[in-house]
Amino acid sequence: MGTLYVVGIGPGGYADMSIRAIEAIRTSELIVGYTAYIKMLKDVLKDESWIIEKDFYDTGMTGETKRCKYAIEEAAKGRKVSVICTGDAGVYGMASPVLELLGDEEVRVEVIPGITAACSGAAILGAPLSNDFCVISLSDRLTPQEVIVKRLKGAAAADFPIVLYNPASKGRPDALKKAVEVLKECGVPETTVCGIAHSIGREGESVTITDLGHLCNNEVTMSDTVFIGNSLSYGKNGHIVTPRGYKVD
Amino acid sequence: MGTLYVVGIGPGGYADMSIRAIEAIRTSELIVGYTAYIKMLKDVLKDESWIIEKDFYDTGMTGETKRCKYAIEEAAKGRKVSVICTGDAGVYGMASPVLELLGDEEVRVEVIPGITAACSGAAILGAPLSNDFCVISLSDRLTPQEVIVKRLKGAAAADFPIVLYNPASKGRPDALKKAVEVLKECGVPETTVCGIAHSIGREGESVTITDLGHLCNNEVTMSDTVFIGNSLSYGKNGHIVTPRGYKVD
Repeated sequence: MGTLYVVGIGPGGYADMSIRAIEAIRTSELIVGYTAYIKMLKDVLKDESWIIEKDFYDTGMTGETKRCKYAIEEAAKGRKVSVICTGDAGVYGMASPVLELLGDEEVRVEVIPGITAACSGAAILGAPLSNDFCVISLSDRLTPQEVIVKRLKGAAAADFPIVLYNPASKGRPDALKKAVEVLKECGVPETTVCGIAHSIGREGESVTITDLGHLCNNEVTMSDTVFIGNSLSYGKNGHIVTPRGYKVD
Repeated sequence: MGTLYVVGIGPGGYADMSIRAIEAIRTSELIVGYTAYIKMLKDVLKDESWIIEKDFYDTGMTGETKRCKYAIEEAAKGRKVSVICTGDAGVYGMASPVLELLGDEEVRVEVIPGITAACSGAAILGAPLSNDFCVISLSDRLTPQEVIVKRLKGAAAADFPIVLYNPASKGRPDALKKAVEVLKECGVPETTVCGIAHSIGREGESVTITDLGHLCNNEVTMSDTVFIGNSLSYGKNGHIVTPRGYKVD
């Protein structure tokens, strides 16, 4: 029986990978992924002598289904295969398409979790989540725009701190602006503390702390993750803090 | 200047720790945490020769503020200190109380993210999240019950897959039952696929797949994390799958 690991490699550096993720990749014969992430992984693991022995298979954006099918086919031949995802394997990752595409092949699938941008971005911003929170992608490539709006409205009603993945792309320059409008219409105050985590765990990592009224004055790209606080969040010494609720006096 | 790491150690085993988390603990003189987690960490790292050289400081449940204050005090003396949390440092972790309690001490705080139960639990259940999702704790120790209800209602309106942390405790045997009632009142169907991730990453790790109508027939403890699918989630070969939206034909 073949083995197919779906591996979350974390935000992008060696240090934020888990031992299990490194071990899965080390023991795999074939590593499959999005072209830019395969390139990144080769660079991150360039000091590991075993990395040059691996077979690689990569496809570009929109090649996800092809990639997963190839990985399943190769694993079905008895090979050990890793499908890699940045962040976590399950959060906007490849665990779902792999399991959807898996038929009756003799393949054991193991999902290996990783640190998702909600957690790695929160870490460099301080403590913006702390309690209950939600994660919403602003990409309408796989989710209809009306579902995105419904999710933003539900998040505002619940007073969740919100983590926005894919806040912008070349084809969607206004995605963040539209989302901010929805939240403001729901009564989220313009003074709500917000943060942008830029290039988490990669070269150029930085943070911006702002508020909802000024969030869209900042340039936001595909490499950024946006955090919108809830009614209890506040800024403190360059950090965002959402209280847990402990008495701290 | 002292250094205070707030370290997410992941679900509980060595393999799910990040390189950065291990390195922070290795280079710290003092390790601070909840009594049961300090015990767990000592066991997880028992093969590391350096673990016996560390100072430890632990307190029981409700000792969180005392622990964080002590860690800040010791770091302010110029020491390198790690405050450990299971899962992620920011999700129901210690990043928030540490930053709330930090005054003008000469202490550099670095939050080191870890794999939270939403991701590690999702991994053993298959792919229940995949897309947008939310995380809600059912503990009313720090959050008023009416806020928990508001969050559940918002989550249902948004059609989020929901991850429930702290689904039960000795003092709250009916917490999950109450949450399920709220979701059903909001129109979430009884046929919605649900999963329970038991003792993730620890001895006795297992999963239960059920539906919302039968969820409360299962024994649920403090060591469990509960997953409630959204309108698109389904069960397949012992896994929960929430589709990403890719064409998989």
